[in-house]
Amino acid sequence: MVADGEPVETAEQQSKKAAKKQAKEAAKAAKKAEHKEAAKKDQESNVEAEDYSAGKYGIAKLIQSAETHSDRKFVKVSDLSQFINKGTVWVRGRVHTSRSKGKQCFLILRQQSSTVQCVIAVGDEVSKQMVKFSGSISKESVIDVHVKVVPVSSSIESCTEQKLELYVCEIYVISAAKPQLPLQIEDASRPENLDDPESLNIRVNQDTRLDNRVLDLRTPANQAIFRLEAGVCKLFRDILTEKGFTEIHTPKIIPAPSEGGANVFTVSYFKDSVYLAQSPQLYKQMAIAADFDKVFTVGAVFRAEDSNTHRHLTEFVGLDLEMSFKYHYHEVLHVIGDTFTAIFKGLRDNYSKEIAAVGQQFKVDAFKFLEPPLILKFSEGVAMLREAGVETGDEEDLSTPNEKLLGRLVKAKYDTDFYILDKFPLAIRPFYTMPDPNNKMYSNSYDMFMRGEEILSGAQRIHDADFLIERAKHHGVDLQKIASYIEAFRFGCPPHAGGGIGMERVVMLYLGLDNIRKTSMFPRDPKRTTP
Amino acid sequence: MVADGEPVETAEQQSKKAAKKQAKEAAKAAKKAEHKEAAKKDQESNVEAEDYSAGKYGIAKLIQSAETHSDRKFVKVSDLSQFINKGTVWVRGRVHTSRSKGKQCFLILRQQSSTVQCVIAVGDEVSKQMVKFSGSISKESVIDVHVKVVPVSSSIESCTEQKLELYVCEIYVISAAKPQLPLQIEDASRPENLDDPESLNIRVNQDTRLDNRVLDLRTPANQAIFRLEAGVCKLFRDILTEKGFTEIHTPKIIPAPSEGGANVFTVSYFKDSVYLAQSPQLYKQMAIAADFDKVFTVGAVFRAEDSNTHRHLTEFVGLDLEMSFKYHYHEVLHVIGDTFTAIFKGLRDNYSKEIAAVGQQFKVDAFKFLEPPLILKFSEGVAMLREAGVETGDEEDLSTPNEKLLGRLVKAKYDTDFYILDKFPLAIRPFYTMPDPNNKMYSNSYDMFMRGEEILSGAQRIHDADFLIERAKHHGVDLQKIASYIEAFRFGCPPHAGGGIGMERVVMLYLGLDNIRKTSMFPRDPKRTTP
Repeated sequence: MVADGEPVETAEQQSKKAAKKQAKEAAKAAKKAEHKEAAKKDQESNVEAEDYSAGKYGIAKLIQSAETHSDRKFVKVSDLSQFINKGTVWVRGRVHTSRSKGKQCFLILRQQSSTVQCVIAVGDEVSKQMVKFSGSISKESVIDVHVKVVPVSSSIESCTEQKLELYVCEIYVISAAKPQLPLQIEDASRPENLDDPESLNIRVNQDTRLDNRVLDLRTPANQAIFRLEAGVCKLFRDILTEKGFTEIHTPKIIPAPSEGGANVFTVSYFKDSVYLAQSPQLYKQMAIAADFDKVFTVGAVFRAEDSNTHRHLTEFVGLDLEMSFKYHYHEVLHVIGDTFTAIFKGLRDNYSKEIAAVGQQFKVDAFKFLEPPLILKFSEGVAMLREAGVETGDEEDLSTPNEKLLGRLVKAKYDTDFYILDKFPLAIRPFYTMPDPNNKMYSNSYDMFMRGEEILSGAQRIHDADFLIERAKHHGVDLQKIASYIEAFRFGCPPHAGGGIGMERVVMLYLGLDNIRKTSMFPRDPKRTTP
Repeated sequence: MVADGEPVETAEQQSKKAAKKQAKEAAKAAKKAEHKEAAKKDQESNVEAEDYSAGKYGIAKLIQSAETHSDRKFVKVSDLSQFINKGTVWVRGRVHTSRSKGKQCFLILRQQSSTVQCVIAVGDEVSKQMVKFSGSISKESVIDVHVKVVPVSSSIESCTEQKLELYVCEIYVISAAKPQLPLQIEDASRPENLDDPESLNIRVNQDTRLDNRVLDLRTPANQAIFRLEAGVCKLFRDILTEKGFTEIHTPKIIPAPSEGGANVFTVSYFKDSVYLAQSPQLYKQMAIAADFDKVFTVGAVFRAEDSNTHRHLTEFVGLDLEMSFKYHYHEVLHVIGDTFTAIFKGLRDNYSKEIAAVGQQFKVDAFKFLEPPLILKFSEGVAMLREAGVETGDEEDLSTPNEKLLGRLVKAKYDTDFYILDKFPLAIRPFYTMPDPNNKMYSNSYDMFMRGEEILSGAQRIHDADFLIERAKHHGVDLQKIASYIEAFRFGCPPHAGGGIGMERVVMLYLGLDNIRKTSMFPRDPKRTTP
């Protein structure tokens, strides 16, 4: 077998060691795959049989950019239907599954979310040795195949390309996977059917997935989740840019805890200590005071909270915005609400394939929203909860169960998975929140919810230095620590409001997933900082 | 004066304290501005004089969203020309300068980069008291004016709106600036003329600027720099998205130093220690191994280097990309080169106003580039340097002076401010760099330069685990610390290459500025972590 695996390109100054090792691994896999009987037959008949496919298959030498192979026409799996019966093309993909059957080998080749069947069958151009070699390639290896695209009479149900298959005339291993994988892509991709207790046995658990994220991310659902996540960021930025916002970048290294002191990570900074920003709050507001008028920023946000829940991370991506207004913070509230509506529409219209791919694995009801979005007062929310039998105080924050219950009540009454809760009690908001001028108990602040979970918190901020001091004192905030924050409002600052959105939460809740670790590519929580 | 300063709106439940304080500050400023003579006259004649403008000017009460004033039609300063002789409109802006002259007060109102002259002159609708009040408003205060837009016969040179002025019929202070400012916007905006030794005296030094960044950022040049910076990010993302790249987000908290151990910040993480990522290198590559094919990420990057230079920051924004290729890393090199070309074109075509605004303060030659970009080999660069009399070794990295000199030589020979240097010596690149298959001394790596300074470093990476181990050992890298990095390549990985770009450097060098602190909104260096 190793002889088959020799480099097909003449080596000039190659790294032989690496190539040899690749060959060895593939050979090992091949040995396992071989049936004893086949091995026996080989011994009898193969000794002198000429390999007329020699040079048309094997382990390619490590790609070090020695050649360009510019004559090879590569086609994406999803574009193959355009090449049916039109000469030969090249495809690079992974071995998803492999099945040998007498003189034939069937490989399913996977390329991101697309799959296609390859047939390597003994014939005029394909030798027995080439078929055997093909069957020996370990799953998840990256291969190049030179193929004819042919139509099939009955649909191939197990592939995304169901109307065609590929007749292989050359096959090379570009990068071999080790034969023993810590998880199988098929298992990691299996639909979660909560009604079927049997299915629990064949799912891959969260930690195994995250420990082997490079494999886990190859499932169709994960390929879709992170493409849709990129879409959320793109929509957020494009919509706000269209509305006249300017993107800014705010420092993650800050000299003092920005919001009072709890829950910040400390960093050794030369001979000093600094902190990781819990939000871009101060800097967004400084940009407003510096005449940028409307700003947004997308970046890492850090929370040193020992919260081990389905929706907390220690590092996440914040989609933050801040905007000056003329007289009423609802000018901003409506901009944010409209931004969400436009994001939901953009996802629905441009990411339907991704939403469907996630739906294949995770059963989810389509996300519903109203246009314009529903705005309720906090007090109205409290009234709805009380009507449902919940005891809750006028100035009491929503507990997680109450938040979820209210989401269900709102859904039942208004048929929307997104709504805005306005006018939160002043007592439960940060010191820089503008009080309601008409009712001492409330404030000009709001939260926004998706499927009954908070995804944005925002408010009109106090833009007057002395009033800010008064409120900070009331909250027992150390004025020394926020001196530069206060100073920023001594040079004239327009009234402004804004909010911060947790990106991973938006994706999780839009798709109806059950854990924020599913929507963070490399999640960080109190117990996980790897890989 | 304080009587004039009373809130013009009937207060319902207002925050009186804040409003009073604002009034007091404005009054204090007014007192200073008053000429003694004028004061005397007032005493004599003003006692009984009726103020027929009462209620048409004053300190507005703190905007707490009590009213919407939806009847007020606000117009941007840059749109005012459309409203000449067409009734009245409202404008919100800052008092840029103010000059009283008998019965008239001239204010220049500034809105971001636009300025316009306001006239408050005693007449049928404007009382002496209103003129006096207008003259008393401190510079940088945010005000609302209700105005008629009228044409002027001779251009107003000191404003961006030169063909018109505003006749004020109402004027309210929305947010008062304190009368003593730590720096004057006019001083901070003054052109830097290096030939004129006198001009040195009236410039504002860098630390004063950064200490008072909220004021400093209001200069026309800074307003333009950070809008153009947003443009660089937008272009980078849009161009790559168009080319089929997917945006990803990589963690800043990492379990071990990614590139050997030096120059990383340590973070206290619950009972553990973690580190701040020096680059998204590992995670970009994992995304490639996870089949995302082409990825980019924009985010904070941290370097614990005690480098106090014009081009080093401890925290900056990385524009990173990574891309799988078929056979030769030049497939990627060309994509990166084309991306730069498209960014330069996008800036030239869509940000000409911003480029001109920066040019008003900083004398800069327009940025030149070739299409397609110039690609030189490292050895060719060395030859050019030697021809110019520089002694440098074949495997020696470019020193900063040599880098700059080479930039000048290239500019003289090829007339381009952007070029690519390919095939760096292997010895001076990180362990994960793919060696050149044809010449042991070199590697498949490249840097890219703008105006003779490096702005991108990149390479083909080693995508084979065993070869990676071999190279890591050669570099003396602790294999334990990079175990998970190596493991990522054991499950099949396509060949790939990429690079990382320093965003602030691109903006600095595109605009020809002399210090990276000019292109970081809130810069962080070994000596500065504020504001």
